[in-house]
Amino acid sequence: MFLLEEPSEQDIIDAHNRIKSYIHHTPILTSSSLNSEFNCNLFFKCENFQKGGAFKIRGAANALFSLNEDEVVNGVATHSSGNHAVALALSAKIRNVPAYIVMPENVSRAKLSAVKCYGGNIFFCKPGLIHREEALNNILERTKAVFIHSYDNYSVIAGQATCAKEIYEELNSKAKLDFIIVPIGGGGLLSGTCLSTKYFSPSTKVIGAEPKEADDAFRSIRDNVIYPSINPKTVCDGLLTQLSEKTFSIIKKNVYKILTAKEETIIYSMKLILERMKILVEPSSAITLAVVLENKEEFQNMNIGLILTGGNVDLEKLPWYG
Amino acid sequence: MFLLEEPSEQDIIDAHNRIKSYIHHTPILTSSSLNSEFNCNLFFKCENFQKGGAFKIRGAANALFSLNEDEVVNGVATHSSGNHAVALALSAKIRNVPAYIVMPENVSRAKLSAVKCYGGNIFFCKPGLIHREEALNNILERTKAVFIHSYDNYSVIAGQATCAKEIYEELNSKAKLDFIIVPIGGGGLLSGTCLSTKYFSPSTKVIGAEPKEADDAFRSIRDNVIYPSINPKTVCDGLLTQLSEKTFSIIKKNVYKILTAKEETIIYSMKLILERMKILVEPSSAITLAVVLENKEEFQNMNIGLILTGGNVDLEKLPWYG
Repeated sequence: MFLLEEPSEQDIIDAHNRIKSYIHHTPILTSSSLNSEFNCNLFFKCENFQKGGAFKIRGAANALFSLNEDEVVNGVATHSSGNHAVALALSAKIRNVPAYIVMPENVSRAKLSAVKCYGGNIFFCKPGLIHREEALNNILERTKAVFIHSYDNYSVIAGQATCAKEIYEELNSKAKLDFIIVPIGGGGLLSGTCLSTKYFSPSTKVIGAEPKEADDAFRSIRDNVIYPSINPKTVCDGLLTQLSEKTFSIIKKNVYKILTAKEETIIYSMKLILERMKILVEPSSAITLAVVLENKEEFQNMNIGLILTGGNVDLEKLPWYG
Repeated sequence: MFLLEEPSEQDIIDAHNRIKSYIHHTPILTSSSLNSEFNCNLFFKCENFQKGGAFKIRGAANALFSLNEDEVVNGVATHSSGNHAVALALSAKIRNVPAYIVMPENVSRAKLSAVKCYGGNIFFCKPGLIHREEALNNILERTKAVFIHSYDNYSVIAGQATCAKEIYEELNSKAKLDFIIVPIGGGGLLSGTCLSTKYFSPSTKVIGAEPKEADDAFRSIRDNVIYPSINPKTVCDGLLTQLSEKTFSIIKKNVYKILTAKEETIIYSMKLILERMKILVEPSSAITLAVVLENKEEFQNMNIGLILTGGNVDLEKLPWYG
């Protein structure tokens, strides 16, 4: 069964052991040109190289493989327009159970074809959370599949926490991180990172990075209430969702702060990563470098980990082309 | 002094030891999605992650560090519009000697600023080999610097040979390569790869990959004469040059064959590498995958090494945007 409480240190260790053979141990890359340009040491954890092109497989696989045979016999289901859909379809394929994925009609072609390629059963609905939940509920009733939410699930959070755990295991003997910077959408990765940092690198400060144009998490933490994310206009298509009760509660207690960045800085950062490091990341990942660029003073001479969450980009619609 | 004869096995081992501390040991990446799509095992050597963004540092550094203090006291010089200019400026900076670089007026902004950033002394000339050589001769006379040709130099060739040596050292215990595929411009990397293959992996067949629109090497090897490369129109801006006596002679004796690919396949391959592997390569690198795509039958079930030579791309002019 899924974890019923906030993941403990042992829960995260268990999650890592559970999923290790199904995921890539992604590399941490550095760029001497970026380091000297910004006068700090940047360590980029490359989840854009992860299976399915994003970190999401960690949470999806941990949740799915936490279920016993009886629980999983009718398959799993979710609603998602993005990388969680791909990750759940892929995890279900590995375990050889059906995955039912509700996607809005306007989903990107790339995500759609990835879900199809992993054998996911796709159900379209009108865009909007209400329509997605309604379509999902119909499917759950009909199939008796298990719902795996993309972030409001402690087993998913424990899975996402394994990313920062890998970073600390690899780096802390050489370069103790002063900061770790994580994009924030629904807060699954950020809350997992908060927990791994508390357990495995307590002196590191966790920073959430969010588009200024979708700053609901920034305001939620500031005002101690979960604000909805209403129709945000940002290039970061992976960061449109709002915090949930589970992620909000973990982040509130553990995050150092949330920084926002402007759209133009996010796009500039995506190009800079591609030009200097030769790797493709989503705008939702480039936000981590963008907040460094907009707050250079604070990061002088610091060791900074940045999680590059994914690289699923429509190459016909690169944001710096008109 | 530079090597005066075709590099021996020991010359390549010496070259590798000489430059090891100045270059990156670049990773070899694989893509299960590409492997299953094309039904073969592709091993991508990522020289796009190399210092200066291309393999060229290997040859430039080996040549420069083969010179003794007296020989190098007046610096080094070359003419180049591309990655060799960047590599020589960077190598000279490491050794703290001046580099004089003749570049055509129409050189790309990105290459120009990289040479400047490494402190190279730049001299502009009109485009065309005659003008470049004339400008270079003036500089050599005035400065007494040592000319390091970008490929018609055995020490440069020995340096480029270290790339395939790394591939065989890393792979041959796990996956013996049936083929290694290398882009061909002036033939420095291809002739170095031919030699390393002969010494370190003699059962591997070496294939040169060339744009159909710039197939002077294909015709040169077929007809046993060096054809000039006259005003070729290809997206592969790193593959415009023609073979030299030194590279022609090595390639002729050792290459298995040269395959060409169409412009549209090259651009498609560049996108495919970016989309599936999340890494940025030049069209001149993507040619290696392009020849696999155009000759699928021949490569079924084979283990194939591909050298991704560089990643210096103008992001404002990606070739699939009009």
